[in-house]
Amino acid sequence: MPHFLDSTQPDFEAAFTALLGMKREEAEDVDAIVAGIIADVRARGDAAVLELTARFDRLTLTADTLAFSPSEMAAEVAKVSPTDREALKLAAERIRAYHERQRPEDASWTDAAGATLGWRWTAVSAAGLYVPGGTASYPSSVLMNAIPAKVAGVERLVICCPTPDGAVNPLVLLAAQLAGVDTVYRIGGAQAVAALAYGTETIAPVDKITGPGNAFVAAAKRRVFGRVGIDMIAGPSEVLVIATGDQDPDWVALDLLSQAEHDISAQSILITPDAAFGQAVEEAIKRHLTTLPRRDIAGQSWAENGAIITVRDLDEAAALSNRIAPEHLEILTPDPEATAAKCLHAGAIFLGAFTPEAIGDYVGGPNHVLPTARSARFSSGLNVLDFMKRTTISRMTPEALKAIGPAAEALAASEGLHAHGLSVTARLARLNG
Amino acid sequence: MPHFLDSTQPDFEAAFTALLGMKREEAEDVDAIVAGIIADVRARGDAAVLELTARFDRLTLTADTLAFSPSEMAAEVAKVSPTDREALKLAAERIRAYHERQRPEDASWTDAAGATLGWRWTAVSAAGLYVPGGTASYPSSVLMNAIPAKVAGVERLVICCPTPDGAVNPLVLLAAQLAGVDTVYRIGGAQAVAALAYGTETIAPVDKITGPGNAFVAAAKRRVFGRVGIDMIAGPSEVLVIATGDQDPDWVALDLLSQAEHDISAQSILITPDAAFGQAVEEAIKRHLTTLPRRDIAGQSWAENGAIITVRDLDEAAALSNRIAPEHLEILTPDPEATAAKCLHAGAIFLGAFTPEAIGDYVGGPNHVLPTARSARFSSGLNVLDFMKRTTISRMTPEALKAIGPAAEALAASEGLHAHGLSVTARLARLNG
Repeated sequence: MPHFLDSTQPDFEAAFTALLGMKREEAEDVDAIVAGIIADVRARGDAAVLELTARFDRLTLTADTLAFSPSEMAAEVAKVSPTDREALKLAAERIRAYHERQRPEDASWTDAAGATLGWRWTAVSAAGLYVPGGTASYPSSVLMNAIPAKVAGVERLVICCPTPDGAVNPLVLLAAQLAGVDTVYRIGGAQAVAALAYGTETIAPVDKITGPGNAFVAAAKRRVFGRVGIDMIAGPSEVLVIATGDQDPDWVALDLLSQAEHDISAQSILITPDAAFGQAVEEAIKRHLTTLPRRDIAGQSWAENGAIITVRDLDEAAALSNRIAPEHLEILTPDPEATAAKCLHAGAIFLGAFTPEAIGDYVGGPNHVLPTARSARFSSGLNVLDFMKRTTISRMTPEALKAIGPAAEALAASEGLHAHGLSVTARLARLNG
Repeated sequence: MPHFLDSTQPDFEAAFTALLGMKREEAEDVDAIVAGIIADVRARGDAAVLELTARFDRLTLTADTLAFSPSEMAAEVAKVSPTDREALKLAAERIRAYHERQRPEDASWTDAAGATLGWRWTAVSAAGLYVPGGTASYPSSVLMNAIPAKVAGVERLVICCPTPDGAVNPLVLLAAQLAGVDTVYRIGGAQAVAALAYGTETIAPVDKITGPGNAFVAAAKRRVFGRVGIDMIAGPSEVLVIATGDQDPDWVALDLLSQAEHDISAQSILITPDAAFGQAVEEAIKRHLTTLPRRDIAGQSWAENGAIITVRDLDEAAALSNRIAPEHLEILTPDPEATAAKCLHAGAIFLGAFTPEAIGDYVGGPNHVLPTARSARFSSGLNVLDFMKRTTISRMTPEALKAIGPAAEALAASEGLHAHGLSVTARLARLNG
C-alpha cells in the first residue's frame, strides 16, 4: 500500500519530511574493485579490456573486434522492423529539433572604458556515451545522449555498450546510426569507462563521458571525474503528478505506473486537492497491477515508495512540489501553466491531460536524462551545453588599461601579489611615461 | 631552470607529452578524517561545528556568534582604506556588468505537430560560498563567486570563512557586502562544508556550494556532491603565453611570474616562434626573481614547472595550446584574434599586449574561477548558469498526441515498458473513439 498523507492532519509535516528523506536505494560499495579495474586498464590497455570482457561478459574479442565493423552494424540494423525504424526516426528528428534551439550564442562588446569583452562557446572534441547492455539497453537513451553531443558539435562520438554472451540490441545500433555516432565498442562496466577516460592502443581517450550504468559504471565515472567531464550520477527515477478531481483517474494511474515499472526503487507521487480522486487513482492502480506485465516491479515500487498526498489547494501542491524537486512533474489541472509558474524546481514539466510523461521519454523532443533525487534544486537535464564550454575573452586598449589598471594594482597590493601588480605597473609606466 | 623545448627537435613530442603529464601536486589523503567530520556535524549540528572551530581555529564561538553581526560587519568594513574600497567597488561593478550579460533566456514555441515546447531557467534557491582564511583569503574571489550567484537570482547567499585565532580580513567582508551576501559565518574546513550541505540548528542548508579551499574542503565538497551541487574542484593554476618576438620580454616575464607567485605548483608556459625572445624573457624572469617579494614561491614554481617552448609558427603554437587546454591564455602577437580563433580549449583568453592576466584576476569583468589541469577541454569558468537550472516544458494538444503518440507506443513496446505504452494508448483510445 502506498503512503497516504493529508496536509490538514497534524502529523503531516513529520510524514512529509520522512517521505522526502526516504532512502530508496542502497549504494553497493564497489569502489575498491573499480579502482583495481581502472588501474589495470591504465597499465595494460587493450589486453586488460579484452580479459575483463571475457570474464564479465563471457565474450572473446580481439583488438580488431572491439568495435562493430560497418558491415556488422548494417547487418544488425537491417533486423529492425519498419515500425520501430520509423518510430526511432521520428524520435531522433524531434529530439534534434528541440536541442538545436539550445545552441548558445557567442558575445562580444566594447564597454565604456574601451575594453572589448565577450565569450565564445566551443564543443568538447570527443565524447563517449555509456549504454547499458541487457534489459536496460534503451535505444531512446542512445538518442537522448548522442543527439545533444552531435548538435553541440562534438567531432568524435563513440559508444561503449556491453554485449553479454554476444547479445546485441539492433535498435541500439540503429539509434547510434541515426544520431551520427562514429564507433560502437562492445565493451562495458568499469573497464569501458577506464578505456574512454585514459585510452588504450585501440580506443582513443575522450574528454567527456555520459550515460547511465550500474553501480560499477557509476563508481568508475566518479573516479575518472576531473580527468574527463562526466554527467550527473543518476539515482532512481521519480514522477510527481499534480491533478485536480476533474481528471481521468485511469490516465493518472497509468502515468504513475509508468514510473513505477522502471525499477522497484522508482517513486511515484500524486498530489491532489480532491481526496476522492486520490482514492479513484489508487483503485485504478490496483486494477492495472493485476494485468501489467511488469506488475511485480511496479507493484513493489508503488507499495514501498508511492504516495498520495491530499492538499488544501494547488498553491499548497506547488509548495510541496518545490520541496520534492521532482525529476518529472505532470500537471493535470484546468490551468496547468498557472501552477507550473509556481513550481520552481523540476527536471521536466508536462502540462495538461494529453502530455503523459511517456511522451517525454521518447518523442516529445526535450531530453529524458534528468536530475533525480531532489537534485533538480541545483541541476538541469542533459542538454547541448553539457557538451560545450565557454571561453571568456578580454582585450584592453591602452586607454582601458589606464582607466582600470590602477584598481588592479591596488587589489594586487592588498592581496600581497606583487608580480600581479607589477605586470600592470610596467605597462602603465610605458603608457604614462 | 625551466623546461626548454623546441618543436623542431626530434625529442620534442616525448618532452611535450612529459610536460603535459607532469603531476604538480600530490593530493593529500584526508578522506577518512573528512568523512568523520561530516558525520559528526550531521549528528550533532551546531555543537560539532563549535567544537571543531575551537579545535582547528583556536576560536571559541557560540551559536549566537557563528555569524558576524551587522555591527561587527560595519566595524570591520570601516577599516578598509578609501583606495582599496574604490578599487573593490570598481571591480564589483565591472564583474556585475559582465555577468549580467550571461542571464539566459527562456524559450517557448509551437511545432508543426501542434506541441508547445520550451524551457524555463530558474535560480538555485540558496547557495553557500567557501572563502579560505589566512593568507589565501582573497576579496577578489568573494566577488567572483558571489556576484554570479546574485545575478542568477539566488535568494539566500551565505559565506563560510574561517578566522583562525579570530583574524579577520576586512576586505573580504567589504567584498561580501558589495556582492549582496546575506550572512558571513566565521567557520571553515570540512565542518563548514558539512554545515552548508546538511544544515545545523543555526545554519540553514543550501543547494549549491562553490569556492576554493584546502584539501579538507575539497574532499568535503566531493563527499557532499549529489546532496548539493558543487563547482569544480580546483587544481593548481596555470598560464600559457603565446608571444611573438616584437613583444616586450619584461611584460611577458611579469605575466609568467604573476602565475608562478601563486603557488609552487602553479605552472607558467611561454610559447614563441622566436628563440631569442624566449631567452630574453628568461633573462627578465631571472632579474625579477632577485627582487620579487614572493621570489621563493615564484622561483620554485618557474624552475620546476615553468617552460619556454620554441615553435615554427603561430599555427603550431595554437595546436600545442589546444593540447595544453590552459586555464589562462595570453596572446601577444600582431594579430591576436587570428590566433585566438584557433585556440579552442581555454578557460579565459587575454588578447594583446595591454591585457595582462592580472587584469582578469581583478577588474576585467570575466570570472577568474576557471578550469585548471586541462579541464578546459570540457568545462567552463564559473558563470551565472552555475547558479541556475533549466526545466524543460512540454504540452501536447490532442492533435499533437495523435501525431506522435503512436511512435511512443512503438518504442515503449520495443523497450518492454508496457505502462508507458498504455498511458498513451488510453488517451488515444478516447481521442479516436
